[in-house]
Amino acid sequence: MAAAFAADSERFEPLNADDVRSYLHKAVDFVYDYYKSVESLPVLPGVEPGYLVRQLKSAAAPPNAAAPFDVAMHELREAVVPGTTHWASPNFFAFFPATNSAAAIAGELVASAMNTVGFTWRLEALALDWLAQLLLLPDSFMNRRTSAGTAAGRTGGGVILGTTSEAMLVTLVAARDAALRRNGSDGMAGITRLTVYAPDQTHSTFFKACRLSGFDPANVRSVPTGADTDYALDPARLLEAMRRGADAGLVPTYVCVTVGTTSSNAVDPVGPAADAAAAFGAWVHVDAAYAGSACICPEFRHHLDGVERVDSVSLSPHKWLLTCLDCTCLWVRDTRRLTESLETRPEYLRNDASESGAVTDLKDMQVGVGRRSRGLKLWMVMRTYGAAKLRQHIRSDVAMAKVFEECVRADDRFEVVVPRNFALVCFRIRPSATAGMTEEDAEAANRELMERLNRSGRVFLANTVIGGKFVLRFAVGSTLQEERHLRSAWDLIKMTTTEIIKGKMD
Amino acid sequence: MAAAFAADSERFEPLNADDVRSYLHKAVDFVYDYYKSVESLPVLPGVEPGYLVRQLKSAAAPPNAAAPFDVAMHELREAVVPGTTHWASPNFFAFFPATNSAAAIAGELVASAMNTVGFTWRLEALALDWLAQLLLLPDSFMNRRTSAGTAAGRTGGGVILGTTSEAMLVTLVAARDAALRRNGSDGMAGITRLTVYAPDQTHSTFFKACRLSGFDPANVRSVPTGADTDYALDPARLLEAMRRGADAGLVPTYVCVTVGTTSSNAVDPVGPAADAAAAFGAWVHVDAAYAGSACICPEFRHHLDGVERVDSVSLSPHKWLLTCLDCTCLWVRDTRRLTESLETRPEYLRNDASESGAVTDLKDMQVGVGRRSRGLKLWMVMRTYGAAKLRQHIRSDVAMAKVFEECVRADDRFEVVVPRNFALVCFRIRPSATAGMTEEDAEAANRELMERLNRSGRVFLANTVIGGKFVLRFAVGSTLQEERHLRSAWDLIKMTTTEIIKGKMD
Repeated sequence: MAAAFAADSERFEPLNADDVRSYLHKAVDFVYDYYKSVESLPVLPGVEPGYLVRQLKSAAAPPNAAAPFDVAMHELREAVVPGTTHWASPNFFAFFPATNSAAAIAGELVASAMNTVGFTWRLEALALDWLAQLLLLPDSFMNRRTSAGTAAGRTGGGVILGTTSEAMLVTLVAARDAALRRNGSDGMAGITRLTVYAPDQTHSTFFKACRLSGFDPANVRSVPTGADTDYALDPARLLEAMRRGADAGLVPTYVCVTVGTTSSNAVDPVGPAADAAAAFGAWVHVDAAYAGSACICPEFRHHLDGVERVDSVSLSPHKWLLTCLDCTCLWVRDTRRLTESLETRPEYLRNDASESGAVTDLKDMQVGVGRRSRGLKLWMVMRTYGAAKLRQHIRSDVAMAKVFEECVRADDRFEVVVPRNFALVCFRIRPSATAGMTEEDAEAANRELMERLNRSGRVFLANTVIGGKFVLRFAVGSTLQEERHLRSAWDLIKMTTTEIIKGKMD
Repeated sequence: MAAAFAADSERFEPLNADDVRSYLHKAVDFVYDYYKSVESLPVLPGVEPGYLVRQLKSAAAPPNAAAPFDVAMHELREAVVPGTTHWASPNFFAFFPATNSAAAIAGELVASAMNTVGFTWRLEALALDWLAQLLLLPDSFMNRRTSAGTAAGRTGGGVILGTTSEAMLVTLVAARDAALRRNGSDGMAGITRLTVYAPDQTHSTFFKACRLSGFDPANVRSVPTGADTDYALDPARLLEAMRRGADAGLVPTYVCVTVGTTSSNAVDPVGPAADAAAAFGAWVHVDAAYAGSACICPEFRHHLDGVERVDSVSLSPHKWLLTCLDCTCLWVRDTRRLTESLETRPEYLRNDASESGAVTDLKDMQVGVGRRSRGLKLWMVMRTYGAAKLRQHIRSDVAMAKVFEECVRADDRFEVVVPRNFALVCFRIRPSATAGMTEEDAEAANRELMERLNRSGRVFLANTVIGGKFVLRFAVGSTLQEERHLRSAWDLIKMTTTEIIKGKMD
């Protein structure tokens, strides 16, 4: 701000270092109090749409005058927090947990203050290489270049994006354009011949990414799964579907498999899927958003077997690797296949390092141009906690999920619906002839159970549908969670189930 | 973390409130020191690719053992900061500034600690409505619902995304699908007939977004601009291009115009562009990423005249509205046109509020599912500083840019190449018969000037090409900037130019 244009008393210095420190200390105090108290807040707020505007007297219009920062902090505490779904609550068991850590939050703070647009952000490449090493990904996915072999040598590398959806989108586009070129299509005319394959348990955002990138909805083939494979991909069915497509003159272009599906944590077999796709030259992407993090432990690494034969892998440390939102790592074996589709070179964004080919401009591996430096927080997490503690974190969550699973199995009113692979337990009140509980009764009882639990504010669970059945998902791992929270939740589930069954009998 | 699974001494509590406070206080100290010292750091680091890996002894592999947080902070100061391009430096004049503020950073900190996935984040809607009010956007773009008219009434609303590119992408897809439906295309077969139009000064990321969404590259029409309109769109040329397309059996589908182009800050006429597009039912998007922020001042608001007739507007407060990365606001007149293309409804993400139609699930207006709560920081900026100070901020930057412009005009070795509309000055060493400076000499001298300036570490400028000429861009407004920084930069530019001209004479 220019001193010349206003009297000193009127100067506006939004980044005055003393103000920054003062505001941030207030925010840190809020964070401290929040973590100390979030356990006692209702997990789901139970407020109606329109609540915030009614609650905040200031809501109707933006204020003209400045207000002390304390005013915003007061409104945050009084009006915003009570209307929030508390993902940080140890009583949060819905979706997948958004895990977090002191190191990650501090890294995000530094990144937002430096506010650098990371076109060629070196720390991001380092963080991606480190995580690739923890996962035992093959060298071919690494950013690291030998001094000799820049252009001619390695072509692998990665980028940190905001969401898995973006990772799917950019790889779909790269695969689409390569398939069009391979098949001699002039422009997009050939797109109606390109087909895409994914098991029916793949996250719905994949089908959205296909739509975004212009694949014909009729050509996006959902490969059926069933109880025989615990809802994981049957590679024979994939191969058959691709063969049928090719026989009909279509061009199998892309296969998406998942390590740890959102619905039930099914694990598609990576190697066999890659083998099936190889016959058609189709791009294979592995979505390991949640469960990929577990693969830093030797006992889970086998879920990635065959990964050296796929084209790309994505994993979101913002899910299970203690890194606050947002942070999705994408590794590809050949960055040139991405940049061929995504590169832009306007005059005002050129730089010597990128022009020389020594570094890949990260904007050419993502949707946008601007980008936050997400690598800093991920690096801080690995630098500060180290691999051993990160493995301890995964194992502790899995061990807690086992405890919950055993509770469910010990009560014969319930059943575990699919085998637990990681820290998600899919369970339901089971039908039982002896208890007079039909399949329809069970369906109604499970719906009522979830509704009552969530309305209580004491826990938050989500549901899914597996094999046509309404199933409760109990996702362990919210970072503040301890075994006592699971035990309380289980007590509440048992008590509520008793009430529901009793109500049904009355 | 479960107490039961490890002895107390071994417990790993990544969100222990005392640790969080301690780490954050260290990060705050870093931020304070950084803002106090960034002025004296080289703006461009002048390091070679591979620098960081050589500098950091720990780089080769991720550590197994934990380290005190001080270790990461030490490496940040010693190895990472020296290799960084300092966008926060008051000597940064490249691209557009990434402006920032104490309120925004504090808001981001709170958001990253609460770490809530904002599927139906009320504060985001409030922040978008407030900014829409400051911009005098018509009611039709507001999220606010009257209690009566939810489903039948208003359909407008907004969402906060990461980049302008994503705003372009989601609106392109919505327009694409609507045009396909309107023209009775079964699936994507009709896509080769859809055409898209944008002036040739439109950001390259727009052409990339067209490619991502599957438009045929041959159908993406760049409308030529020239010196006669100061490189802004000539609506007659747009109309003619669309008419030619329609006459050839093509379907004009989308028009993108820009308020404040990246290259030279040209302003496309919004109303006339909307009128031209109306004849063909094409979607009109306004990219106001940078200069839109100026439109909160009455004296700049006319640049948005006609906005009530367009379909969508995007603006990035992370550019000029003191909000750290990333934060791009997208407003649309009809959210249903977005959600028709982008909605996903997996069982595990359903909720009553969204099912009832009372709120729009924000994931259905963006690429991904997960999302940070970017509304919090934007709300904190408006709540704390108020409209008056935000206008003062814009006006101060514009006034400083005028000072620089006058310096350039006062030295007859230079010329201002296009009129200055906001806080960007496009200038160059001019050819001059009397000084023996041909057009080719000027080109070489300007390239050398920029290279020498940037190599000095004392300033960082970017260039562009306007009308075939190599031009320097001097973007005023980095938040710590004061008039003295501009005057130093100008002194350096003059001195360096004298050296270059002298060297040429020798």
